[in-house]
Amino acid sequence: VAYLEPSYSLYPVLTEVQGSRKLAIPYEFMDGRWGLPDDIERVNATILLIVNPNAPTGHLNPIARLEQIAGVFKGLVLIDEAYTDFAGESALPLVRELKLPNVLLLRTMSKGYSLAGLRFGYALAQESLLKEIEKVRDSYPVDAIAQAAATAAIMDQAYARETWRKVVSERARVTTALQAMGFSLPESASNFVLAQVPSRPGVTARGIYEALKARHILIRWWDLPRIADKIRITIGTPEQNNCLLDELKRLL
Amino acid sequence: VAYLEPSYSLYPVLTEVQGSRKLAIPYEFMDGRWGLPDDIERVNATILLIVNPNAPTGHLNPIARLEQIAGVFKGLVLIDEAYTDFAGESALPLVRELKLPNVLLLRTMSKGYSLAGLRFGYALAQESLLKEIEKVRDSYPVDAIAQAAATAAIMDQAYARETWRKVVSERARVTTALQAMGFSLPESASNFVLAQVPSRPGVTARGIYEALKARHILIRWWDLPRIADKIRITIGTPEQNNCLLDELKRLL
Repeated sequence: VAYLEPSYSLYPVLTEVQGSRKLAIPYEFMDGRWGLPDDIERVNATILLIVNPNAPTGHLNPIARLEQIAGVFKGLVLIDEAYTDFAGESALPLVRELKLPNVLLLRTMSKGYSLAGLRFGYALAQESLLKEIEKVRDSYPVDAIAQAAATAAIMDQAYARETWRKVVSERARVTTALQAMGFSLPESASNFVLAQVPSRPGVTARGIYEALKARHILIRWWDLPRIADKIRITIGTPEQNNCLLDELKRLL
Repeated sequence: VAYLEPSYSLYPVLTEVQGSRKLAIPYEFMDGRWGLPDDIERVNATILLIVNPNAPTGHLNPIARLEQIAGVFKGLVLIDEAYTDFAGESALPLVRELKLPNVLLLRTMSKGYSLAGLRFGYALAQESLLKEIEKVRDSYPVDAIAQAAATAAIMDQAYARETWRKVVSERARVTTALQAMGFSLPESASNFVLAQVPSRPGVTARGIYEALKARHILIRWWDLPRIADKIRITIGTPEQNNCLLDELKRLL
């Protein structure tokens, strides 16, 4: 299983649990932007896993690039679209129009439909691929109440779209405010931003994370290569975002 | 993975899905009673799986015998207690009082708590064993609504006990009525009975199953060795049971 780094940390864990071999491929990071390596479609692996938009970077890999990768890569291209509702563009045409037989999209109701407690996920792919997965998947995967709630949520697209619009609008405002404070951050296509802290004496990502936590404002920070100088902030309500921005101004 | 036959048919499937080797051990059937083979505790396997009460036979293996098996068998003794609430006796003391380190009990809310749509199951074992399972189990296994519903159901023991009492009482009545019609069936400790059809010309288990189905009465019948001459009847409400018994009388 080949996967990008930094990305969602559960995938290497699941790969190990299944007794599969892991291959971590570093994202390129140039001029403050994250990007897929040029030759990634030629990686020697059975599964190539791309989270899109990616977590925790928040960036969107171009769908045209994913199409090109899927055309060359010999194995299964698994695209985790957990955050796709905030991106404005998804890889769905690769499955629905182009009918690529080796593309599997993973979706969840946890983010774009605010149903994180529901544990309702689904996959989108050509029938030829789903038929094979059907052979080994769990027999009783989703409970009846979760099915009813997920169905109701999906039926109410007007409500969902309004939620996405609010998040995207606040994301733009928070991004601008952070940049004004000296943070540098690439455009996010998700419901969070990953911001590099300003280069100032005494200012560290960890320090900001801990100071905010002491004030009951929870953001994420990882002591990991390439992102230890960055903080991930999930977009909240306007009031929550103001609270965070005020506190950051005070800290800096 | 060693498992009994006849028993719950999903286990051999799951064993194959996991790429493990299967070893089917036949239940003994003598004088109309099902029983574990004498030397089962010496089987060469890593997991020994016993459904208790067993499906589809409905019989209960004595808990003292399970204790003895767990003391000798070198691997994990997995006891599926899906139907335990109708049995009056469970293997819980093997875990709670005797603290056997190699016994894992599986429970579900689908039968005794009438929450089949909820997909809520749980395991009972010593912490030393659960700690190891924790390493490989799914990260997000149970949704928040299912947890709330399962908790509410478990808290209302009075209601649950009344349900079990009704099922056990109707089970006795249905058993007596079936025996009076010429069916032979061992004592059931579950919410169903497995009854051998009377030996009469023109009477077959399959025939009864199909005739009942034509009248929208659904029972189970398997075209499998040793049970093809038997039908499995789930205990319903008194009205449903009367309806079934009337129809059986008519058919015979």
